[in-house]
Amino acid sequence: MAKSEIDRLAQLLSRLPGLGPRSARRVVLHLMKKRESLMLPLAKAMMEAASSITNCTICGNLDSENPCGICQHPNRDDSKICVVEDVGDLWALERSGAFKGRYHVLGGTLSALDGRGPAQLNINSLLDRASSEQVQEIILALSATVDGQTTVHYLSECLAGHEVEISKLAHGVPVGGSLDYLDDGTLTAALKSRRSTR
Amino acid sequence: MAKSEIDRLAQLLSRLPGLGPRSARRVVLHLMKKRESLMLPLAKAMMEAASSITNCTICGNLDSENPCGICQHPNRDDSKICVVEDVGDLWALERSGAFKGRYHVLGGTLSALDGRGPAQLNINSLLDRASSEQVQEIILALSATVDGQTTVHYLSECLAGHEVEISKLAHGVPVGGSLDYLDDGTLTAALKSRRSTR
Repeated sequence: MAKSEIDRLAQLLSRLPGLGPRSARRVVLHLMKKRESLMLPLAKAMMEAASSITNCTICGNLDSENPCGICQHPNRDDSKICVVEDVGDLWALERSGAFKGRYHVLGGTLSALDGRGPAQLNINSLLDRASSEQVQEIILALSATVDGQTTVHYLSECLAGHEVEISKLAHGVPVGGSLDYLDDGTLTAALKSRRSTR
Repeated sequence: MAKSEIDRLAQLLSRLPGLGPRSARRVVLHLMKKRESLMLPLAKAMMEAASSITNCTICGNLDSENPCGICQHPNRDDSKICVVEDVGDLWALERSGAFKGRYHVLGGTLSALDGRGPAQLNINSLLDRASSEQVQEIILALSATVDGQTTVHYLSECLAGHEVEISKLAHGVPVGGSLDYLDDGTLTAALKSRRSTR
Protein backbone atom coordinates (compact mmCIF):
# COMPACT_ATOMS: atom_id res chain seq x y z
CA MET A 1 0.00 0.00 0.00
CA ALA A 2 1.47 3.30 -1.09
CA LYS A 3 -0.56 5.70 1.02
CA SER A 4 2.56 7.18 2.55
CA GLU A 5 1.54 10.79 1.82
CA ILE A 6 -1.70 10.28 3.72
CA ASP A 7 0.07 8.61 6.62
CA ARG A 8 2.68 11.33 6.76
CA LEU A 9 0.04 14.08 6.75
CA ALA A 10 -1.95 12.30 9.49
CA GLN A 11 1.21 11.81 11.53
CA LEU A 12 2.13 15.51 11.32
CA LEU A 13 -1.44 16.58 12.14
CA SER A 14 -1.51 14.30 15.18
CA ARG A 15 1.33 16.39 16.65
CA LEU A 16 -0.94 19.45 16.89
CA PRO A 17 -2.33 20.20 20.35
CA GLY A 18 -5.81 18.73 20.80
CA LEU A 19 -5.49 16.22 17.93
CA GLY A 20 -4.71 12.53 18.42
CA PRO A 21 -4.12 9.87 15.75
CA ARG A 22 -7.85 9.27 15.32
CA SER A 23 -8.91 12.90 14.96
CA ALA A 24 -5.88 13.53 12.71
CA ARG A 25 -7.21 10.89 10.28
CA ARG A 26 -10.61 12.55 10.42
CA VAL A 27 -8.96 15.89 9.57
CA VAL A 28 -7.11 14.28 6.63
CA LEU A 29 -10.39 12.96 5.18
CA HIS A 30 -12.04 16.35 5.68
CA LEU A 31 -9.12 18.10 3.96
CA MET A 32 -9.25 15.63 1.06
CA LYS A 33 -12.91 16.42 0.51
CA LYS A 34 -12.27 20.18 0.58
CA ARG A 35 -9.06 20.26 -1.40
CA GLU A 36 -9.58 23.55 -3.21
CA SER A 37 -11.60 25.40 -0.58
CA LEU A 38 -9.62 24.46 2.54
CA MET A 39 -6.51 22.29 2.06
CA LEU A 40 -4.60 24.48 -0.42
CA PRO A 41 -5.55 27.82 1.25
CA LEU A 42 -4.51 26.37 4.62
CA ALA A 43 -1.16 25.14 3.27
CA LYS A 44 -0.58 28.55 1.67
CA ALA A 45 -1.56 30.43 4.84
CA MET A 46 0.92 28.30 6.82
CA MET A 47 3.73 28.96 4.34
CA GLU A 48 3.02 32.70 4.42
CA ALA A 49 2.73 32.83 8.19
CA ALA A 50 5.97 30.86 8.63
CA SER A 51 7.88 33.33 6.50
CA SER A 52 6.24 36.63 7.44
CA ILE A 53 5.39 36.36 11.14
CA THR A 54 8.12 37.06 13.67
CA ASN A 55 8.39 37.87 17.35
CA CYS A 56 8.37 41.61 18.00
CA THR A 57 11.84 42.69 19.20
CA ILE A 58 10.32 45.09 21.73
CA CYS A 59 7.55 43.09 23.42
CA GLY A 60 7.80 39.53 22.04
CA ASN A 61 4.32 39.52 20.46
CA LEU A 62 3.81 37.62 17.17
CA ASP A 63 3.08 39.80 14.16
CA SER A 64 3.92 40.24 10.50
CA GLU A 65 5.42 43.64 11.35
CA ASN A 66 8.37 44.31 13.61
CA PRO A 67 7.89 46.17 15.96
CA CYS A 68 4.40 44.68 16.24
CA GLY A 69 1.11 46.49 15.65
CA ILE A 70 0.59 47.08 19.37
CA CYS A 71 4.08 48.51 19.97
CA GLN A 72 3.68 50.75 16.89
CA HIS A 73 0.14 51.89 17.71
CA PRO A 74 0.18 55.69 18.28
CA ASN A 75 -2.86 55.84 20.60
CA ARG A 76 -1.87 53.33 23.27
CA ASP A 77 -0.76 54.32 26.75
CA ASP A 78 3.06 54.26 27.01
CA SER A 79 2.96 54.60 30.80
CA LYS A 80 1.66 51.07 31.43
CA ILE A 81 3.30 47.75 30.51
CA CYS A 82 1.33 44.55 31.02
CA VAL A 83 3.62 41.53 31.51
CA VAL A 84 2.17 38.22 30.24
CA GLU A 85 3.52 34.68 30.04
CA ASP A 86 2.63 33.91 26.49
CA VAL A 87 1.30 35.40 23.26
CA GLY A 88 -1.97 33.53 23.88
CA ASP A 89 -2.45 35.49 27.12
CA LEU A 90 -1.78 38.74 25.24
CA TRP A 91 -4.48 37.80 22.72
CA ALA A 92 -6.91 36.99 25.55
CA LEU A 93 -6.33 40.41 27.14
CA GLU A 94 -6.71 42.12 23.75
CA ARG A 95 -10.02 40.34 23.19
CA SER A 96 -11.26 41.63 26.54
CA GLY A 97 -10.45 45.15 25.36
CA ALA A 98 -9.81 46.13 28.99
CA PHE A 99 -6.18 47.20 28.54
CA LYS A 100 -4.93 49.99 26.32
CA GLY A 101 -1.25 50.12 27.28
CA ARG A 102 1.75 48.17 25.94
CA TYR A 103 2.63 44.52 26.53
CA HIS A 104 5.69 42.45 27.37
CA VAL A 105 5.72 38.70 26.66
CA LEU A 106 7.95 36.79 29.11
CA GLY A 107 7.89 33.53 27.16
CA GLY A 108 6.88 31.42 30.17
CA THR A 109 7.23 31.39 33.92
CA LEU A 110 10.09 30.43 36.18
CA SER A 111 9.83 26.71 36.81
CA ALA A 112 12.15 24.56 38.89
CA LEU A 113 10.53 21.38 37.55
CA ASP A 114 10.92 22.33 33.89
CA GLY A 115 14.36 23.84 34.52
CA ARG A 116 13.36 27.34 33.39
CA GLY A 117 15.40 30.00 35.16
CA PRO A 118 15.47 33.80 34.72
CA ALA A 119 17.93 33.48 31.82
CA GLN A 120 15.33 31.67 29.70
CA LEU A 121 12.76 34.46 30.05
CA ASN A 122 12.69 37.93 28.47
CA ILE A 123 13.44 39.59 31.82
CA ASN A 124 16.42 41.75 30.85
CA SER A 125 14.48 43.48 28.09
CA LEU A 126 11.67 44.12 30.59
CA LEU A 127 14.10 45.74 33.03
CA ASP A 128 15.44 47.90 30.19
CA ARG A 129 11.92 49.00 29.29
CA ALA A 130 11.10 49.65 32.97
CA SER A 131 14.04 52.10 33.12
CA SER A 132 12.37 54.32 30.53
CA GLU A 133 10.98 57.56 31.95
CA GLN A 134 7.61 57.10 30.26
CA VAL A 135 6.78 53.89 32.11
CA GLN A 136 4.89 54.46 35.35
CA GLU A 137 3.22 51.11 36.04
CA ILE A 138 4.06 47.49 35.35
CA ILE A 139 1.13 45.08 35.63
CA LEU A 140 2.18 41.49 36.22
CA ALA A 141 -0.67 39.56 34.53
CA LEU A 142 0.67 36.06 35.20
CA SER A 143 -1.21 32.84 35.97
CA ALA A 144 -2.44 32.23 39.52
CA THR A 145 -0.36 29.03 39.65
CA VAL A 146 2.60 28.36 41.93
CA ASP A 147 5.05 28.98 39.07
CA GLY A 148 3.19 32.11 37.98
CA GLN A 149 3.16 33.58 41.48
CA THR A 150 6.83 32.67 42.01
CA THR A 151 7.57 34.63 38.85
CA VAL A 152 5.46 37.57 40.10
CA HIS A 153 7.51 37.58 43.31
CA TYR A 154 10.83 37.36 41.44
CA LEU A 155 9.90 40.15 39.02
CA SER A 156 8.74 42.40 41.86
CA GLU A 157 12.18 42.04 43.46
CA CYS A 158 13.96 42.71 40.15
CA LEU A 159 11.84 45.81 39.54
CA ALA A 160 12.12 47.11 43.11
CA GLY A 161 15.06 49.38 42.20
CA HIS A 162 13.14 51.03 39.35
CA GLU A 163 10.85 53.99 39.85
CA VAL A 164 7.69 52.24 38.71
CA GLU A 165 4.54 51.07 40.38
CA ILE A 166 4.18 47.27 40.27
CA SER A 167 0.78 45.62 40.40
CA LYS A 168 -0.68 42.18 39.87
CA LEU A 169 -4.11 40.89 38.87
CA ALA A 170 -6.84 40.60 41.49
CA HIS A 171 -7.85 37.18 42.78
CA GLY A 172 -11.55 36.56 43.28
CA VAL A 173 -14.78 35.01 42.09
CA PRO A 174 -14.82 34.69 38.26
CA VAL A 175 -17.63 36.72 36.67
CA GLY A 176 -20.56 34.35 36.08
CA GLY A 177 -19.09 31.88 38.58
CA SER A 178 -21.11 30.23 41.32
CA LEU A 179 -19.63 30.18 44.85
CA ASP A 180 -20.64 26.54 45.19
CA TYR A 181 -18.07 25.39 42.67
CA LEU A 182 -15.16 27.54 43.81
CA ASP A 183 -12.10 26.18 45.61
CA ASP A 184 -11.16 27.31 49.12
CA GLY A 185 -8.15 29.33 47.96
CA THR A 186 -10.20 31.49 45.61
CA LEU A 187 -12.96 31.99 48.19
CA THR A 188 -10.42 33.01 50.85
CA ALA A 189 -8.78 35.44 48.42
CA ALA A 190 -12.14 36.88 47.36
CA LEU A 191 -13.16 37.37 51.00
CA LYS A 192 -9.85 38.97 51.96
CA SER A 193 -9.99 41.43 49.05
CA ARG A 194 -13.66 42.30 49.63
CA ARG A 195 -14.71 45.79 48.67
CA SER A 196 -17.30 48.22 49.94
CA THR A 197 -20.44 48.21 47.78
CA ARG A 198 -20.79 51.96 48.04
CA MET B 1 -3.13 45.79 14.38
CA ALA B 2 -1.80 43.95 11.36
CA LYS B 3 -2.03 40.38 12.56
CA SER B 4 -4.17 39.41 9.60
CA GLU B 5 -2.01 36.39 8.64
CA ILE B 6 -2.45 34.95 12.13
CA ASP B 7 -6.20 35.59 12.08
CA ARG B 8 -6.55 34.05 8.64
CA LEU B 9 -4.59 30.94 9.67
CA ALA B 10 -6.67 30.57 12.86
CA GLN B 11 -9.87 31.06 10.88
CA LEU B 12 -8.92 28.33 8.38
CA LEU B 13 -7.81 25.96 11.14
CA SER B 14 -11.10 26.46 13.01
CA ARG B 15 -12.90 24.95 10.01
CA LEU B 16 -11.21 21.57 10.61
CA PRO B 17 -13.36 18.96 12.36
CA GLY B 18 -12.74 18.91 16.10
CA LEU B 19 -11.21 22.40 16.24
CA GLY B 20 -13.09 25.50 17.34
CA PRO B 21 -11.88 29.12 17.37
CA ARG B 22 -10.14 28.67 20.74
CA SER B 23 -8.28 25.46 19.92
CA ALA B 24 -7.41 26.88 16.48
CA ARG B 25 -5.62 29.79 18.19
CA ARG B 26 -3.79 27.29 20.39
CA VAL B 27 -2.71 25.39 17.27
CA VAL B 28 -1.45 28.62 15.68
CA LEU B 29 0.72 29.37 18.72
CA HIS B 30 2.03 25.80 18.72
CA LEU B 31 2.84 26.01 15.00
CA MET B 32 4.61 29.34 15.49
CA LYS B 33 6.84 27.79 18.14
CA LYS B 34 7.68 24.81 15.92
CA ARG B 35 8.06 26.62 12.64
CA GLU B 36 10.84 24.53 11.13
CA SER B 37 10.00 21.18 12.67
CA LEU B 38 6.22 21.17 12.20
CA MET B 39 4.68 24.16 10.40
CA LEU B 40 6.69 24.04 7.16
CA PRO B 41 6.68 20.20 6.88
CA LEU B 42 2.91 20.22 7.49
CA ALA B 43 2.29 22.90 4.85
CA LYS B 44 4.48 20.95 2.40
CA ALA B 45 2.76 17.65 3.18
CA MET B 46 -0.62 19.30 2.51
CA MET B 47 0.55 20.72 -0.81
CA GLU B 48 1.92 17.35 -1.87
CA ALA B 49 -1.14 15.44 -0.73
CA ALA B 50 -3.45 17.88 -2.50
CA SER B 51 -1.66 17.37 -5.80
CA SER B 52 -0.78 13.67 -5.63
CA ILE B 53 -3.67 11.95 -3.86
CA THR B 54 -6.74 11.06 -5.89
CA ASN B 55 -9.76 8.80 -5.57
CA CYS B 56 -9.14 5.37 -7.08
CA THR B 57 -11.27 4.99 -10.22
CA ILE B 58 -12.05 1.36 -9.36
CA CYS B 59 -12.96 1.42 -5.67
CA GLY B 60 -12.99 5.10 -4.63
CA ASN B 61 -10.20 4.77 -2.04
CA LEU B 62 -7.78 7.70 -1.56
CA ASP B 63 -4.22 7.00 -2.67
CA SER B 64 -1.29 8.54 -4.51
CA GLU B 65 -1.59 5.78 -7.12
CA ASN B 66 -4.53 5.10 -9.37
CA PRO B 67 -5.75 2.33 -9.22
CA CYS B 68 -5.03 2.37 -5.48
CA GLY B 69 -2.61 0.11 -3.62
CA ILE B 70 -5.38 -2.22 -2.50
CA CYS B 71 -6.89 -2.62 -5.99
CA GLN B 72 -3.39 -3.22 -7.41
CA HIS B 73 -2.28 -5.64 -4.71
CA PRO B 74 -1.60 -9.07 -6.29
CA ASN B 75 -2.29 -11.17 -3.18
CA ARG B 76 -5.75 -9.98 -2.24
CA ASP B 77 -8.88 -12.03 -2.77
CA ASP B 78 -10.69 -10.94 -5.94
CA SER B 79 -13.79 -12.95 -5.07
CA LYS B 80 -14.89 -10.67 -2.20
CA ILE B 81 -15.83 -6.99 -2.34
CA CYS B 82 -16.44 -5.15 0.89
CA VAL B 83 -18.75 -2.14 0.42
CA VAL B 84 -18.10 0.75 2.84
CA GLU B 85 -19.59 4.23 3.23
CA ASP B 86 -16.42 6.22 3.45
CA VAL B 87 -12.64 6.02 3.11
CA GLY B 88 -12.41 6.29 6.91
CA ASP B 89 -14.37 3.04 7.24
CA LEU B 90 -12.03 1.38 4.74
CA TRP B 91 -9.05 2.47 6.87
CA ALA B 92 -10.71 1.12 10.01
CA LEU B 93 -11.26 -2.28 8.37
CA GLU B 94 -7.68 -2.29 7.08
CA ARG B 95 -6.37 -1.57 10.58
CA SER B 96 -8.33 -4.54 11.90
CA GLY B 97 -6.55 -6.71 9.34
CA ALA B 98 -9.62 -8.97 9.23
CA PHE B 99 -10.41 -8.54 5.53
CA LYS B 100 -8.14 -9.50 2.65
CA GLY B 101 -10.44 -8.89 -0.33
CA ARG B 102 -11.14 -5.75 -2.35
CA TYR B 103 -13.15 -2.69 -1.32
CA HIS B 104 -15.77 -0.40 -2.80
CA VAL B 105 -16.35 3.07 -1.32
CA LEU B 106 -19.96 4.24 -1.76
CA GLY B 107 -19.28 7.83 -0.73
CA GLY B 108 -22.09 7.94 1.85
CA THR B 109 -25.46 6.37 2.50
CA LEU B 110 -28.86 7.02 1.02
CA SER B 111 -30.46 9.77 3.08
CA ALA B 112 -33.84 11.34 2.56
CA LEU B 113 -33.03 14.12 5.05
CA ASP B 114 -29.74 15.10 3.39
CA GLY B 115 -31.23 14.62 -0.09
CA ARG B 116 -28.77 11.89 -1.09
CA GLY B 117 -30.30 9.48 -3.59
CA PRO B 118 -28.77 6.52 -5.46
CA ALA B 119 -27.39 8.85 -8.16
CA GLN B 120 -25.08 10.54 -5.64
CA LEU B 121 -23.44 7.26 -4.59
CA ASN B 122 -21.00 5.02 -6.49
CA ILE B 123 -23.66 2.34 -7.04
CA ASN B 124 -23.39 1.90 -10.82
CA SER B 125 -19.68 1.09 -10.63
CA LEU B 126 -20.46 -1.43 -7.86
CA LEU B 127 -23.05 -3.15 -10.09
CA ASP B 128 -20.49 -3.26 -12.91
CA ARG B 129 -17.94 -4.86 -10.61
CA ALA B 130 -20.53 -7.31 -9.29
CA SER B 131 -21.12 -8.52 -12.85
CA SER B 132 -17.53 -9.72 -13.08
CA GLU B 133 -17.15 -13.50 -12.99
CA GLN B 134 -14.46 -13.39 -10.33
CA VAL B 135 -16.72 -11.79 -7.71
CA GLN B 136 -18.54 -14.30 -5.53
CA GLU B 137 -19.48 -12.34 -2.42
CA ILE B 138 -20.35 -8.74 -1.69
CA ILE B 139 -20.14 -7.74 1.97
CA LEU B 140 -22.20 -4.67 2.85
CA ALA B 141 -20.20 -3.18 5.73
CA LEU B 142 -22.40 -0.15 6.34
CA SER B 143 -23.30 1.62 9.59
CA ALA B 144 -26.01 0.15 11.80
CA THR B 145 -27.98 3.40 11.49
CA VAL B 146 -31.35 3.85 9.83
CA ASP B 147 -29.71 5.37 6.74
CA GLY B 148 -27.04 2.67 6.67
CA GLN B 149 -29.57 -0.15 6.88
CA THR B 150 -31.81 1.50 4.27
CA THR B 151 -28.79 1.51 1.97
CA VAL B 152 -28.09 -2.16 2.76
CA HIS B 153 -31.69 -2.97 1.80
CA TYR B 154 -31.51 -0.93 -1.41
CA LEU B 155 -28.18 -2.46 -2.47
CA SER B 156 -29.45 -5.99 -1.78
CA GLU B 157 -32.33 -5.34 -4.17
CA CYS B 158 -30.04 -3.87 -6.82
CA LEU B 159 -27.68 -6.84 -6.55
CA ALA B 160 -30.43 -9.45 -6.49
CA GLY B 161 -30.16 -10.04 -10.24
CA HIS B 162 -26.41 -10.74 -10.05
CA GLU B 163 -24.96 -14.15 -9.32
CA VAL B 164 -23.25 -13.12 -6.10
CA GLU B 165 -23.74 -13.87 -2.46
CA ILE B 166 -24.70 -10.76 -0.48
CA SER B 167 -23.90 -10.46 3.22
CA LYS B 168 -23.93 -7.80 5.89
CA LEU B 169 -22.07 -7.32 9.15
CA ALA B 170 -23.26 -9.13 12.29
CA HIS B 171 -25.03 -7.16 15.01
CA GLY B 172 -24.13 -8.03 18.59
CA VAL B 173 -22.26 -7.18 21.76
CA PRO B 174 -19.06 -5.18 21.00
CA VAL B 175 -15.90 -7.01 22.08
CA GLY B 176 -14.94 -5.68 25.50
CA GLY B 177 -18.46 -4.29 26.02
CA SER B 178 -20.50 -4.80 29.16
CA LEU B 179 -24.15 -5.90 28.78
CA ASP B 180 -25.16 -3.34 31.36
CA TYR B 181 -24.43 -0.40 29.06
CA LEU B 182 -25.93 -1.84 25.88
CA ASP B 183 -29.15 -0.59 24.32
CA ASP B 184 -32.18 -2.83 23.86
CA GLY B 185 -31.79 -3.06 20.09
CA THR B 186 -28.27 -4.44 20.30
CA LEU B 187 -29.18 -6.88 23.06
CA THR B 188 -32.16 -8.16 21.09
CA ALA B 189 -30.00 -8.59 17.98
CA ALA B 190 -27.26 -10.35 19.96
CA LEU B 191 -29.80 -12.72 21.51
CA LYS B 192 -31.48 -13.47 18.17
CA SER B 193 -28.16 -14.25 16.46
CA ARG B 194 -26.87 -16.36 19.36
CA ARG B 195 -24.50 -19.15 18.43
CA SER B 196 -23.75 -22.55 19.86
CA THR B 197 -20.61 -22.54 22.02
CA ARG B 198 -19.53 -25.92 20.71
